Amino acid sequence: MIKNDLFLRALKGEPVERPPVWMMRQAGRYLPEFMAIREKYDFFTRCQTPELASEITVQPIRRYGMDAAILFSDILVVPQAMNIQVEMKPGVGPWLPEPIRSQKDVDRVVVPDVTQALGYVMEAVKATKELLCDEVPLIGFAGSPWTILCYCVQGQGSKNFDKAKEFCFTQPLAAHTLLQKITDTTIAYLKEKVAAGVNAVQIFDSWGGMLSPEDYQEFSWKYIQQIIDTLTPLVPVIAFGKGCWFALEEMAKSKAAALGVDWTVSPKVARELTGHSITLQGNFDPVRLLSPPAVIKEMVTRMIDDFGKDRYIVNLGHGILPHVPTDHAKAFIDAVKDYAPA
Amino acid sequence: MIKNDLFLRALKGEPVERPPVWMMRQAGRYLPEFMAIREKYDFFTRCQTPELASEITVQPIRRYGMDAAILFSDILVVPQAMNIQVEMKPGVGPWLPEPIRSQKDVDRVVVPDVTQALGYVMEAVKATKELLCDEVPLIGFAGSPWTILCYCVQGQGSKNFDKAKEFCFTQPLAAHTLLQKITDTTIAYLKEKVAAGVNAVQIFDSWGGMLSPEDYQEFSWKYIQQIIDTLTPLVPVIAFGKGCWFALEEMAKSKAAALGVDWTVSPKVARELTGHSITLQGNFDPVRLLSPPAVIKEMVTRMIDDFGKDRYIVNLGHGILPHVPTDHAKAFIDAVKDYAPA
Repeated sequence: MIKNDLFLRALKGEPVERPPVWMMRQAGRYLPEFMAIREKYDFFTRCQTPELASEITVQPIRRYGMDAAILFSDILVVPQAMNIQVEMKPGVGPWLPEPIRSQKDVDRVVVPDVTQALGYVMEAVKATKELLCDEVPLIGFAGSPWTILCYCVQGQGSKNFDKAKEFCFTQPLAAHTLLQKITDTTIAYLKEKVAAGVNAVQIFDSWGGMLSPEDYQEFSWKYIQQIIDTLTPLVPVIAFGKGCWFALEEMAKSKAAALGVDWTVSPKVARELTGHSITLQGNFDPVRLLSPPAVIKEMVTRMIDDFGKDRYIVNLGHGILPHVPTDHAKAFIDAVKDYAPA
Repeated sequence: MIKNDLFLRALKGEPVERPPVWMMRQAGRYLPEFMAIREKYDFFTRCQTPELASEITVQPIRRYGMDAAILFSDILVVPQAMNIQVEMKPGVGPWLPEPIRSQKDVDRVVVPDVTQALGYVMEAVKATKELLCDEVPLIGFAGSPWTILCYCVQGQGSKNFDKAKEFCFTQPLAAHTLLQKITDTTIAYLKEKVAAGVNAVQIFDSWGGMLSPEDYQEFSWKYIQQIIDTLTPLVPVIAFGKGCWFALEEMAKSKAAALGVDWTVSPKVARELTGHSITLQGNFDPVRLLSPPAVIKEMVTRMIDDFGKDRYIVNLGHGILPHVPTDHAKAFIDAVKDYAPA
């Protein structure tokens, strides 16, 4: 059904002629055509207007021809739908004016009817599927419950999310209640996305690496697993945990179709930690996209050699940076398309 | 000569009745007596006035009786001495009004005569040694060259130090020239500290974990090794790399007396990665000091059981947070002093 099914085949672990490639945050600020839309519409307008979200989603595919599209949206639309106010403050980023700090705050959080509260996302999925004409698969995504909790409690981005961790460590019951509410919402949300047409989903655990291995199991992985277990019969699930190298061995035992890794894990170590058994995705250092294009090409080729062309999806180890030149992004994608084994 | 030599014995790998304990940033903002001094004198006045620096250094020893003191100072006194302007902006932290972005900028950086430019630190060491009366050893420290470069190029703290990495990736020759200048200054600086009386030194590589394993070797570890190789005949050297789990195997092969680890590395994995051969230091999650004191005690006891009481120095995995209650810090120290093997 999907014409270019490299990405879906890699998720199944099937042999491919070359690995598929996409980039985290590929629909974003490094693209002039994105900036043109961004000048006219604010962040949540872009997320909530299916015509805009779908147009933004396909922009990088048109320009570079990645092997998968990822829906333009934000992980914080989920807490927003749960009765938690989320704003985007220019120069600050996510801003939650009433952060959650107590059981009473948690009690006010709702598990919404996602078809109502997040219906605009499903409309965006449908609009995107039309624009894509089955050329490449569409990825839907959600933040991990722990990462969502981080923002809900901290109230904004942070170097160490100390308030979020303090909340978990001093009020674990309230924290677990909140995590379960986020998990339930996320599961319903992703199921709806699948029904609307996404071909795979990715869980972003951007802040899992702030936790010790033990705390990670308790406050993050346990909930990601619920999501994987519920979604896997419906769709392949990719679990990406930034800084979560210490949990890779455990994660590889899950039903996830693939695991995302960041650039602190070498391909060799990533394969060893995951028992050479699961599809891996990553892990180019986003700042390395500022290297000269010839260096990018050489590094990408070596990265594929090191991961191996099968059971592998080429990606960055985190989101693309806004000031990456467009021809450097092109060098990254082209290096994969031109890949020939050493 | 030093009455309590637990810390020095652990650094030599000698068996001890219980592991020694100190805390990164133990002379700091969680202490009311520190805050009283902080209200009267600004940051660099505190660093540059030997009476203040030495008084601040011994404050935590008086209150808690840690097994080692660490000189109150800052890693950024080194670039300051190298003709790079460094300020402390309230609410922002380190602020360098003229960040280094080119070879021309690097050319303006000097390798100073440290006895002149940093003589005040040596005076602080001597004043502290007098106050300590040989009760416990005194640790001197420096930032790793890479971590110092991070601030010099970025101009301030950062989530990802993208500008610092971009500088290294796009102007590697200029970056290496700067790294070598910082290394030369740091070696001269630490030698002087040893001459002034410190009993051990620690290298803080706070931002090494931002790099890929390969880039870490090129831009960070290579220079830390120069420092270790030159200082080791004079004094035991501790290398602490936050987020540098991926380099532990390599680091364990160096002449460092001990390696610091953060809380993302379990004791078991840390021992495995370092071949059970070197003294390890760490790795309590600083935010876990906000847990109830009984939980802290139980967790510290388990941490010692897991690392083993020998070749081990109890510490946090990063600096203590300003809002930790003093009785929680006490619970941490007391748990080590009361340690009895399981």
